[in-house]
Amino acid sequence: MKPVNVGLLGIGTVGGGTYTVLTRNAEEISRRAGRPIRIFAVADRNLEHARNIAKDACKITDDAFAVVGDPAVDVVVELIGGYDLARELVLTAIHNGKHVVTANKALLAVHGNEIFAAARKKGVIVAFEAAVAGGIPIIKALREGLAANRIEWVAGIINGTTNFILSEMRDRGLSFAEALAGAQRLGYAEADPTFDIEGIDAAHKATLMASIAFGIPVQFDKAYVEGITRLEAIDLKYAEQLGYRIKLLGIAKRREDGVELRVHPVLIPAKRLIANVEGAMNAVLVKADAVGATLYYGKGAGAEPTASAVIADLVDVARAATTDPNNRVPHLAFQSDQLHDLPILPIAEAETACYLRLTVADKPGVLADVTRILADQEISIDAFLQREPKEGKTDVIMLTHRCKEKQADAAICKIEDLSAVVGKVTRLRLEDLQ
Amino acid sequence: MKPVNVGLLGIGTVGGGTYTVLTRNAEEISRRAGRPIRIFAVADRNLEHARNIAKDACKITDDAFAVVGDPAVDVVVELIGGYDLARELVLTAIHNGKHVVTANKALLAVHGNEIFAAARKKGVIVAFEAAVAGGIPIIKALREGLAANRIEWVAGIINGTTNFILSEMRDRGLSFAEALAGAQRLGYAEADPTFDIEGIDAAHKATLMASIAFGIPVQFDKAYVEGITRLEAIDLKYAEQLGYRIKLLGIAKRREDGVELRVHPVLIPAKRLIANVEGAMNAVLVKADAVGATLYYGKGAGAEPTASAVIADLVDVARAATTDPNNRVPHLAFQSDQLHDLPILPIAEAETACYLRLTVADKPGVLADVTRILADQEISIDAFLQREPKEGKTDVIMLTHRCKEKQADAAICKIEDLSAVVGKVTRLRLEDLQ
Repeated sequence: MKPVNVGLLGIGTVGGGTYTVLTRNAEEISRRAGRPIRIFAVADRNLEHARNIAKDACKITDDAFAVVGDPAVDVVVELIGGYDLARELVLTAIHNGKHVVTANKALLAVHGNEIFAAARKKGVIVAFEAAVAGGIPIIKALREGLAANRIEWVAGIINGTTNFILSEMRDRGLSFAEALAGAQRLGYAEADPTFDIEGIDAAHKATLMASIAFGIPVQFDKAYVEGITRLEAIDLKYAEQLGYRIKLLGIAKRREDGVELRVHPVLIPAKRLIANVEGAMNAVLVKADAVGATLYYGKGAGAEPTASAVIADLVDVARAATTDPNNRVPHLAFQSDQLHDLPILPIAEAETACYLRLTVADKPGVLADVTRILADQEISIDAFLQREPKEGKTDVIMLTHRCKEKQADAAICKIEDLSAVVGKVTRLRLEDLQ
Repeated sequence: MKPVNVGLLGIGTVGGGTYTVLTRNAEEISRRAGRPIRIFAVADRNLEHARNIAKDACKITDDAFAVVGDPAVDVVVELIGGYDLARELVLTAIHNGKHVVTANKALLAVHGNEIFAAARKKGVIVAFEAAVAGGIPIIKALREGLAANRIEWVAGIINGTTNFILSEMRDRGLSFAEALAGAQRLGYAEADPTFDIEGIDAAHKATLMASIAFGIPVQFDKAYVEGITRLEAIDLKYAEQLGYRIKLLGIAKRREDGVELRVHPVLIPAKRLIANVEGAMNAVLVKADAVGATLYYGKGAGAEPTASAVIADLVDVARAATTDPNNRVPHLAFQSDQLHDLPILPIAEAETACYLRLTVADKPGVLADVTRILADQEISIDAFLQREPKEGKTDVIMLTHRCKEKQADAAICKIEDLSAVVGKVTRLRLEDLQ
């Protein structure tokens, strides 16, 4: 049978992995797909590097547009990353009637609606399993495996860098800065780690999962994004004493009035399976009405895990090529004319329990003031931890029941105004994930 | 768009759940599938019960053959269970050109090769996501999500009844008989629990996973099957002290010389995520060359979790109807002419580490004899635990390094012959699952 000819844009880490796995497992993959899948053309700025890696590719060029315009290429794999050039290449490939596989979450979270609309118009597929949680087939699970369900929420550890840093902070009592430096030394964090540690990468992925779970357009600009840069080791310790772990979660939750879409550090009960996902591993927990809770766990990054997802998409594309386009799995899980316009809710409307840490002067009446302020905002307290006073001051840690973010904001503001409260209140969100 | 007409055979627990979920989530499912999926005809021996549940079905009958012969039915969902009648109905449906969705692992593990061959001949689909691990989309993950990989092994907690019993034995120190009685009271075990507690159900599922993972025909008769009926609470306790949990695993492992296919209780390091899967939950751990380890967790049984998988298959069937049959996902993941003839290895050839518990007379030289026997079989000892002697006897627990089953068998035989060893040696297998 005629092979599927792949045009590979970018042969860096993931591109190299894709080439390696397609070559090493060529027989196994072709036994599954019913036809060989081969890298036909490669475009990379570094021609010498490309020639060293892709020894069997027919064409190697530094002109990516030559690849997306090559009539012999059936599928374009975009692994360049970034926004502008990637967008132009993907749209050109689509315009030329080529299917596209991409690992570029940033591109899809920001330009997804435009790209998917162009693909529908041309009857081609844009597949992006590798864009979320690396090698874990979570897009397939959400889009196809759970198609019977009304999905209630999705909560995921979808950034390995930050999970590694949090594991190191907890295990070894490091500060954020120390753990970040260690992660950079070990190659788990990039020289400029902003996208990871500020939660932007996780928010790109959560945005895509929200669309697929609930059938809404991609709306990254409405996501609430908070990273782990302000986390203190002491809070990880207190959380542990209260029976929790702190993880950076990407959360998409359906409510009557809209969708919560948020990325921030979260306390999770330590006994939950997802709380025990350590190091650079990823996991996504999905709550759906028929199946209940399901969890998907694996490597969220790296050359071959990501290549695994890219190639799964290539096999899917090879199969779906003969399907009536109307019968293919829709890009965002729901038929494009069936996307709903559920609003993404502002973070002030989000509901979570809270972890509050405050330093107070060790004198009578302070706690009465604090609890009265919470009661005024209709926030009730679930657990309480007080440290031994030191130099006339003490740390007070409270876990609250669920409340709206704006209630917590108002209470925190008033608590910080109390004369006996020293400095700022540390607030972390807590999710039970039941 | 024309709805997909489903003919439902059997409207018991899972059939009822399928009807409920298809009705409750009709809009959501049709937004995904691009067309409505509806129960058109129902066959059940209990007509009154069927009429009470399937209020909107066009046809209700007690003649299942009328449904598989009905020209208006597009897809037959077989939820009758068992071997003979189910086989006849499924083959008749296929003969009549209808796609089939089934949750019947027993049927497919035993008659799968015949059924898949018939389906290929007629160009219809036989889908069976619900046959393994209930609502967890593990068939889809293995067959499509990991299509890039050479799968090395699959190990799963794929029987909720036995996992519930093991959790109860561990948590509450119950004997097997007590935990089983409790599981029966709570509806987690059937009145005749043989299929579950003897490991047969898990072996059916492991058989299907082995075929899909390695591209081999279905060979249930070659599987090694050992249940949990002979497990003693004391071994769960000793395992815990050594840092392990005992789980009933279905294991399919590829080796150079063939495939290990076995179900039996296994010690797993307690820190592994899969060791912490408790109660009636299921989880499958897959080790593959590109993606590494991935884990899939969720409810493995129950009306709606299983219905979730049945309906996901219905959506897949609705989509694949317009695909060139040669391009569809193959029933056993690999193209049918590409199935390999890797032998299933006899259990004597399987390699695992061992947990050995023996009761010995408290006198000098016994341990020297035991360790010499192990050394003669080239079995080395990894960990050792000895209890306080009581009434002149003591329990000795040893963990060995990996060895072949036949080496362990030979050693155990000789150890039991020692005059200082009282009764039988208890042997459990241990898997590191790294």
